[in-house]
Amino acid sequence: MSVMIALAGDARIGTDDRGLNYGEGVFETLRIHAGKPLWWGAHWQRLVRGAAVLGIETPQADAVRAACAPLLAQPGDGVLKLLLTGGAGGRGYAPPVQAQPQLLISRHALPPSWPVAGGRVRWSQLRLGIQPALAGIKHCNRLEQILARRECNDPDIHESLLCDALGAPTCAIAGNLFVLRKGVWLTPLIDRAGVAGICRQWLLSQGIAREQRLEIADVEQADAIFLCNAVRGILPVRALGAQQIAIPPELQALTQRLAQAEPAFARTGDSENG
Amino acid sequence: MSVMIALAGDARIGTDDRGLNYGEGVFETLRIHAGKPLWWGAHWQRLVRGAAVLGIETPQADAVRAACAPLLAQPGDGVLKLLLTGGAGGRGYAPPVQAQPQLLISRHALPPSWPVAGGRVRWSQLRLGIQPALAGIKHCNRLEQILARRECNDPDIHESLLCDALGAPTCAIAGNLFVLRKGVWLTPLIDRAGVAGICRQWLLSQGIAREQRLEIADVEQADAIFLCNAVRGILPVRALGAQQIAIPPELQALTQRLAQAEPAFARTGDSENG
Repeated sequence: MSVMIALAGDARIGTDDRGLNYGEGVFETLRIHAGKPLWWGAHWQRLVRGAAVLGIETPQADAVRAACAPLLAQPGDGVLKLLLTGGAGGRGYAPPVQAQPQLLISRHALPPSWPVAGGRVRWSQLRLGIQPALAGIKHCNRLEQILARRECNDPDIHESLLCDALGAPTCAIAGNLFVLRKGVWLTPLIDRAGVAGICRQWLLSQGIAREQRLEIADVEQADAIFLCNAVRGILPVRALGAQQIAIPPELQALTQRLAQAEPAFARTGDSENG
Repeated sequence: MSVMIALAGDARIGTDDRGLNYGEGVFETLRIHAGKPLWWGAHWQRLVRGAAVLGIETPQADAVRAACAPLLAQPGDGVLKLLLTGGAGGRGYAPPVQAQPQLLISRHALPPSWPVAGGRVRWSQLRLGIQPALAGIKHCNRLEQILARRECNDPDIHESLLCDALGAPTCAIAGNLFVLRKGVWLTPLIDRAGVAGICRQWLLSQGIAREQRLEIADVEQADAIFLCNAVRGILPVRALGAQQIAIPPELQALTQRLAQAEPAFARTGDSENG
């Protein structure tokens, strides 16, 4: 059967949906700017890659893009979410023989803005389970992120850094991690846990950073730290726990470079980015 | 807000349900026999324990039990499923301030019967990620089980055995694991991965078996192996890959002991158990 595509507001979800029962699905959250979804191609490719890992059929990209049009036409910046689930299925882990996956499309407000002077982060006590079969894709099994978010209930802390079960720094709760070490930007390998983010992918494609297995000391002794994701761009870090972190010219230059390539991330001081 | 309780057939699931988006929920599958749900108390306690880990409010047990009544009144044996999700929530991992969790109740047919002469199992290539924060509870992040099930597409193989990321045998895809070693029944610790099953709990409560970290050799050199779950009871194993496994009198005695305590698991040769 073909994939059902629906705007979330119109959709009726069955109680036997495999997304609801098992988190069997993948999703993307795209920045909407000037009526367009940013990095559409990269997001779509990751969704297709993730769906293939889970064995979920994907719809035609053109049909999805067309269905998004009314949401993109709304004024201002926002977030476009695509959620592809396995669809209706019987009880039990084995996928149904005749599955009808469904793709739900919705628009959301931008998240709160990141402090212009840089955010404060801390280490999460929770460690990410190591699962190479799922690492990199943006699947819907997100209890680890929810637990890590609940763990961090200090309103002065903007994000948490997560290590994997073997103690390697891997990512933030909702973003990737970059550290400046000896003049080189490094970002953790996403081969054991974490999501291979689209802003991270853009930075790697620009030759700006290198993937590497990190140790905690690489983060704690970094000359600069930033997080990034596809909705909010580059998020400078000015404190890790009690430790102050500089925001050096190299990081300011990187932020400007992204803003020049993608004006959505220009800090114009307006209400959406301020 | 209080928890919404609904029969699955009548329920309308919002597209922003946190179960659908993140697998934020817990579930139970209970055996229905003679119009009653088996081991109700133990299932309910596990659901409450899991909900507490995820920070989801639970409804009153009495109200849930009352809502199940029409499903229990249907003739024959079956499966009662309780699915408690975080309910509606905004985009993002942080739980909404005012969450309204929902509990969905549904009835399903029994799964196919396990071979009377014992089933064939194999080792899964997929290893379970280690996550002590989620081990034991029956949460809705089940992509590992789905991948393991997809991996095993040989119809002559009835189940797969899973090791955790450190190589310790942990469970089957939909059941717990017991092995007979030197006259003692052993079952893996469920402190790093896996679900602490209700039939397993019954067996431990009877003083029949001991929890222990197992190695692969403990399974491959076992004098007997069985799986178990709350819907199907004890499931003897007669082959592990190419290796034949005996079903000794100790295992037959155990199966009889369970059947005497819980007649749902008596093999009467009827269509439900045959």
